[in-house]
Formats: sequence, structure tokens, C-alpha cells
Amino acid sequence: MLTRIDHVGIACRDLAQRIAIYESTFKLVVVNRELNEEQGVSEALLRVADGPAGASYIQLLEPLGPDTPVGRFLARRGEGIHHVGYGVANITAALESIGAAGIKLIDSRPRHGSMGSSVAFLHPADLGGVLTELVQVPGEHPDQPRKIIT
Amino acid sequence: MLTRIDHVGIACRDLAQRIAIYESTFKLVVVNRELNEEQGVSEALLRVADGPAGASYIQLLEPLGPDTPVGRFLARRGEGIHHVGYGVANITAALESIGAAGIKLIDSRPRHGSMGSSVAFLHPADLGGVLTELVQVPGEHPDQPRKIIT
Repeated sequence: MLTRIDHVGIACRDLAQRIAIYESTFKLVVVNRELNEEQGVSEALLRVADGPAGASYIQLLEPLGPDTPVGRFLARRGEGIHHVGYGVANITAALESIGAAGIKLIDSRPRHGSMGSSVAFLHPADLGGVLTELVQVPGEHPDQPRKIIT
Repeated sequence: MLTRIDHVGIACRDLAQRIAIYESTFKLVVVNRELNEEQGVSEALLRVADGPAGASYIQLLEPLGPDTPVGRFLARRGEGIHHVGYGVANITAALESIGAAGIKLIDSRPRHGSMGSSVAFLHPADLGGVLTELVQVPGEHPDQPRKIIT
């Protein structure tokens, strides 16, 4: 079901500062900057590696305000790892399987993620406190064209 | 410098219970069980994917007691993501480069990790609250034979 670790999502207060540190420390580069108003974040993706099922990233997240999921996370826990995202070939099938296994879903249907991906979050309660995201990149499942989520 | 996301380390109170949930939810299997007394953990690795530079894992960690790094993490923050590990081809060179960039190191020299790997931790203070581990798997850098860390 899982094709790779797609990304580690890291909550930060100052995106530009955190990008500079990650770029200089690990010799990474930002491959995408995006404002996701639905999720309430400004984000940057730094590519760690390419793999047969897609790339892996560090995703740096700055909240657009205090009353957003990442804003509340920062107030409660401070800066640090916010969630982990796993690649899946077919996010609809994965959500059905995981829901059937009794895991609480935050998103029962996919929504927009970074760079045109479809994403869905699983609730941390059933997964040992880990906010978990599924990511299907466009074209990852060529036999089943990506649905446009509206 | 970074070759992949090697693993996400997840702190839990009951390793057997957490393994069962991750196996059934994501159709993963445990590929390694290990007791690491130096790090004070009993751990399980579940393989997520193989890649050109090595595999990626979910690492489930149960502390051997309350007075261990993972035991203190659980008391302070509860269950959840404890750290992230990145693959490197040459851990000694990576540590030198990262130290020269001004990042505080927990381990200035590699120590024993899972499945015969060499690992070193970087301090979260300079990396946005993220406890970060470097992992060099045996044989990953064939031009420079792995040193046995004693």
C-alpha cells in the first residue's frame, strides 16, 4: 500500500529562516513554494532524494495564523515534526482499506496537496499520536487517471 | 549529502500493540527486531519501500525504562514522532560538514544503529526542534569500508 516516505512535515515559526538553515546544513534546495489556504500554511519542499515511486521531501510549514492546525500545534508543542506523509499509488483505495481496518480518518476523501498531489490525513489517535498523511502524486497510478478534487 | 529519508522514529508505550496496528493498517511487515541497550530502546523496523540508496522504514521504539531518552520523551510529550533519520553515504564526512555549518551535534562520532548501521544524532536546537539522525548502512559507501565502531 505505501510506496515510500513522501515527506516529513516540520512546523516552524519563520519559514525563510528555517529554509536557510536546512539548505546550508544539508546542501538541499527548495523545489517548490506554495501557499495552501485550505490547510492554512505557507510551505516549502526541499527534495531529499528521488526514488522509483517518486521523490522524498522535507516539508517546512509556517502557519498563516494562530487559528490554523499548524498554528495551534506551535502554540501547544513548539517547533518540530508535525506529521509524516507516505506515498500511495491509489489514495481512494488506500483510504477505503485503512478505514475498513478501523483507523479514524480526518479526510474520508482526498483534497489538494503540494504540487498537484491528492492528499488525505489520518487521525493520530489510532496511530500512536502520529498525524499521518497519504499522498498520491499526479500520474503515479497511470491505470486510474487522477480525479480532480473540487 | 542526504541519500533518502531512512526512517521515521515513533515513540510508543507498547511495542507489540503498536506493531500490530501498523502491520494491519498499512500492510507492512517487521523486518528487524532489536534491543539497543546503548540507546535504551526495544525497537522494530517495518519496511515501507526500497530505493536506489537503501530502504525506508518506520521505526517503532519502546523505551527500556523511564530514565532513557525515549522514556523521558514519552513522559514529556506522550506518544508520537520522536525523530527522523536520513541516509548518508559517508557519515564521517557528513558530520564534519554539518558541524562546520555550526549545527550542534549530539554525537561527534558515529555509534551503533539498527541492523549494523552507523548512526549519529544532531541536536534539535539548531534544526527547528527536530531530533535528526544520520544513518550509514553497511556497504553503502563501498569505496570507504565501514569502520567498526568500538
